[in-house]
Amino acid sequence: MPHFQDDLDHLKERLLVMAGAVEEQVRASVQSLVDRDHELVEQVLAGDDPINRLHIEIDERCFRLLALHQPVATDLRVVVSGVKINSDLERIGDFAINVAEATLRYLEHPAVKPLIDVPRMADIAQGMLRDSLNAFVRQDSRLAREVLDRDDSVDRLKERVFRELIGIMCSDAQVTQSALELLLISRHLERIGDHATNIAEEAIFIASGRDVRHHGRDGGPRGADPAPRREE
Amino acid sequence: MPHFQDDLDHLKERLLVMAGAVEEQVRASVQSLVDRDHELVEQVLAGDDPINRLHIEIDERCFRLLALHQPVATDLRVVVSGVKINSDLERIGDFAINVAEATLRYLEHPAVKPLIDVPRMADIAQGMLRDSLNAFVRQDSRLAREVLDRDDSVDRLKERVFRELIGIMCSDAQVTQSALELLLISRHLERIGDHATNIAEEAIFIASGRDVRHHGRDGGPRGADPAPRREE
Repeated sequence: MPHFQDDLDHLKERLLVMAGAVEEQVRASVQSLVDRDHELVEQVLAGDDPINRLHIEIDERCFRLLALHQPVATDLRVVVSGVKINSDLERIGDFAINVAEATLRYLEHPAVKPLIDVPRMADIAQGMLRDSLNAFVRQDSRLAREVLDRDDSVDRLKERVFRELIGIMCSDAQVTQSALELLLISRHLERIGDHATNIAEEAIFIASGRDVRHHGRDGGPRGADPAPRREE
Repeated sequence: MPHFQDDLDHLKERLLVMAGAVEEQVRASVQSLVDRDHELVEQVLAGDDPINRLHIEIDERCFRLLALHQPVATDLRVVVSGVKINSDLERIGDFAINVAEATLRYLEHPAVKPLIDVPRMADIAQGMLRDSLNAFVRQDSRLAREVLDRDDSVDRLKERVFRELIGIMCSDAQVTQSALELLLISRHLERIGDHATNIAEEAIFIASGRDVRHHGRDGGPRGADPAPRREE
């Protein structure tokens, strides 16, 4: 039976590998937007499958670790956190795909404005991702708190981008603003459905022992063309 | 020492309580939009704190269950799923808050159009939420698969709402569409930051044993005025 500490170190390594892959997807998706690079968009879209495989592998690894070693106290918390972080990473990977898909649509039209704040947001977010994982692996709560602080910068940049784009979008600001709010609401609702879907997938896993995530709804392997996204 | 099965049943009960509270938040947030009911919006905004407390309680319950009983096989999977489902529920609760916040802004202006599809989306999403939890508790994979199917209806409704609202938003469709894509991209990026923040909070928890979720960044208790949302 392998030592618990070895298995735990290996889990952390795999989470770092997953985080690196996800970070690269985020970087490339925004780079493809800035450079108007269709080929890079396609690379990002193709890069989701390896991340989904890592997601499943790491989930299984956490489960085996719990079953085999039955850790307690801090060790147990690390493994349970591993489960959650793994989910977060998978979702971030999905967002990179969302960026790439939106980029594809954006590239059908001439550029709206020079891109400055959007790449800056991506830079900060990538740094946050990297440091949050490092903070987890090294159990460095100071670094983790720094990440929390940086989230405010991303939020502020987003607010600025929103304001600017809404200004660009139309002249009749009265109606636009309202319509946009409805649009946002409909997206919140869609994501509520998506989360319920996640829960349902957990339920299937519990009930039938089959992991249906990242597979077609019939449980078959996911093909080359991207399956519908869970989160938008 | 309490029996494992009793603790597990209690965990499931608490998840159902949390799901019921979250479902009510979703219902009320959309009702406040339809009825243009400011008071109901305020109720929804105030309803987040009990859900956040449930979230922490259930997380602790899962942890104690793992530490005390060291379950294996299916029992272990149920508890690990409980951890994930708990996170999903908490995020859905946040989305209800997002709907309420957007509703507040929406109510500053006259109504854009009669609301038919948006409440319908909410109805379907609520049903999905309810049934996904029931499927988990009863280990009913058939019901869970039905939930997956319904997700397509929500997605289709969202597409229709999007198309209609983009039509309403402006006349110069060329620029609008592009600007909207940028806007969406910036939101994806913001949420990537949010997820990294979640990971950082896990890291703090591991490193210092303090749960900083749903609290101010200094670790103090969250006050009456809502803290910044993690996900939008």
